[in-house]
Amino acid sequence: MGLIGGSVLRALAAAGHDMVGFDADPATRGTARTAAAEAPPSARWRIVPSVSAAVADAELCVIAVPLPALETVLDEITGRGYRGLITDVTSVKLPVLDLVERYLEGGSQRLAGFVGGHPMAGRETSGFTAADPRLFDDCAWVLGLEPGRTMLGDWLDLADLVTSLGARAVPTTAAEHDRAVATISHVPHLVASAVAEQAADPLAAALGAGSFRDGTRVAATRSDLVAAMCGGNADSVRPVLDAVIESLTAARAALDARDPIAALRPWLASGHRVRAAWPATPGEPLPMRPSVNALLDLGRAGGWITSVSKDRTTVTAVRPE
Amino acid sequence: MGLIGGSVLRALAAAGHDMVGFDADPATRGTARTAAAEAPPSARWRIVPSVSAAVADAELCVIAVPLPALETVLDEITGRGYRGLITDVTSVKLPVLDLVERYLEGGSQRLAGFVGGHPMAGRETSGFTAADPRLFDDCAWVLGLEPGRTMLGDWLDLADLVTSLGARAVPTTAAEHDRAVATISHVPHLVASAVAEQAADPLAAALGAGSFRDGTRVAATRSDLVAAMCGGNADSVRPVLDAVIESLTAARAALDARDPIAALRPWLASGHRVRAAWPATPGEPLPMRPSVNALLDLGRAGGWITSVSKDRTTVTAVRPE
Repeated sequence: MGLIGGSVLRALAAAGHDMVGFDADPATRGTARTAAAEAPPSARWRIVPSVSAAVADAELCVIAVPLPALETVLDEITGRGYRGLITDVTSVKLPVLDLVERYLEGGSQRLAGFVGGHPMAGRETSGFTAADPRLFDDCAWVLGLEPGRTMLGDWLDLADLVTSLGARAVPTTAAEHDRAVATISHVPHLVASAVAEQAADPLAAALGAGSFRDGTRVAATRSDLVAAMCGGNADSVRPVLDAVIESLTAARAALDARDPIAALRPWLASGHRVRAAWPATPGEPLPMRPSVNALLDLGRAGGWITSVSKDRTTVTAVRPE
Repeated sequence: MGLIGGSVLRALAAAGHDMVGFDADPATRGTARTAAAEAPPSARWRIVPSVSAAVADAELCVIAVPLPALETVLDEITGRGYRGLITDVTSVKLPVLDLVERYLEGGSQRLAGFVGGHPMAGRETSGFTAADPRLFDDCAWVLGLEPGRTMLGDWLDLADLVTSLGARAVPTTAAEHDRAVATISHVPHLVASAVAEQAADPLAAALGAGSFRDGTRVAATRSDLVAAMCGGNADSVRPVLDAVIESLTAARAALDARDPIAALRPWLASGHRVRAAWPATPGEPLPMRPSVNALLDLGRAGGWITSVSKDRTTVTAVRPE
């Protein structure tokens, strides 16, 4: 029940779901129990002292642990005979998929009962005290969709749930997700740390303003979380980090040119073009008949789902303009 | 009269000074003239059609042009026989110093009448319409102090003026300034551009959240401004960019380790330590007798001036705790 797990707990409780929370740390359980007593009666949650108590009678289990702890938790949950739907909020999806497959019945390669998730709603703060039921407003929440393996019904159940919290459900495969988040989250975390490291000098620190504050903000995130996130996605992070180093090496060469100002201008243009066009303007929401391929095409085009019809035959899709 | 020049004009006018503005672009002059008519009568400014009209009868001339345009403006100002105080707001100070020396009487190496300035108050927006009289609240405003060359009285006049706008006057040499801003501004701009450039893919763009938004914010700045700023400070930017590339190369090696998560943890620790301690907590404001050496020591310790006594014998100094 850290920042994300705690926020999921609070958000779903606030939406009227019957929620049960567990954290391996007794102090966190105490904090969460006290907070529950202070919440409006209609939005309370129960805190239980074990994984088995948490999953007993559950319809959905949200696993919100860092990647290195996932195997133990899957062990405990499946060991207790849990057969409901499982999702997670881990920032890397291929390693999660690999793990989950080992726990699914008969190793059938069918992901019945599992949909990997990743709400793009990190903050540099952590812990249950930082949890916020509004954290997912308008945030992109990736829901993994593997052709021939994910059950579309499971995916739509999860999409219905996360869109009810105000999130944008983004359909994508684990592999495509991992490459994308390496680009827009993992490598930016590494880069922020490398830049922050240079500002140990007190004069430099005193002159730090907007570009330093924002450019290094995520370097304040706990190092073990960032290490788990980037190291757990090493295969996808490597090529993106290589591309950034290559790009910076080109900027370094421009600084050696006879006219560094003129040499830097074209180098700066491509990053400027991408950033000036971001975020894309959302187009009109349109009804769409959900199929695995149509949903994946939507995700690849930068689109998302904002609602799922009760009978699961229609979703509302938004694409960038 | 772009973002910084326009903000200086508005801030000093709002503080009751008699302000005159000039911009080489007639459209900007028109915008600034219209805005003046809409300002409270006590905080208006005049717009004039030439540099000579702008500096006639002036006591202080604030040059707010990018580095490549500075020489032309200095030419015009000194050509018109202007003999008042000059400051600038350019983000690089050694090249400015080199230029200014050529224009001072007799090439005496004494910077009588000149104090280089740099308010650390950039934004990704530009132009007079983005100008804000409150832009300098609590911002660090570097004022150049060259031992044996800057006149202490000139420096204190400028420190009095910028602190009256709510800024922190930071005393430092041009060389130390240029190294510091390479670290906390110029290299962060280059890095933001290199990271933004990777996110051309629509799925990646759709998943971009806080770390991408903040880490690449300054990549939206006009490329010609960033090129002038970084290229104009090439000598100081090179070693800092080299250090960032070296650091990222070490992170890349950690990703190749047998346990990338464990290998990344110590690499992330140093950036985390610096950023978690930033910004430093200001200590108690204390009176100080201003001398060139005492002021430079204050700047090196990460300190600044918040006010100057009327008789110029005492300043109020703040150091980090």
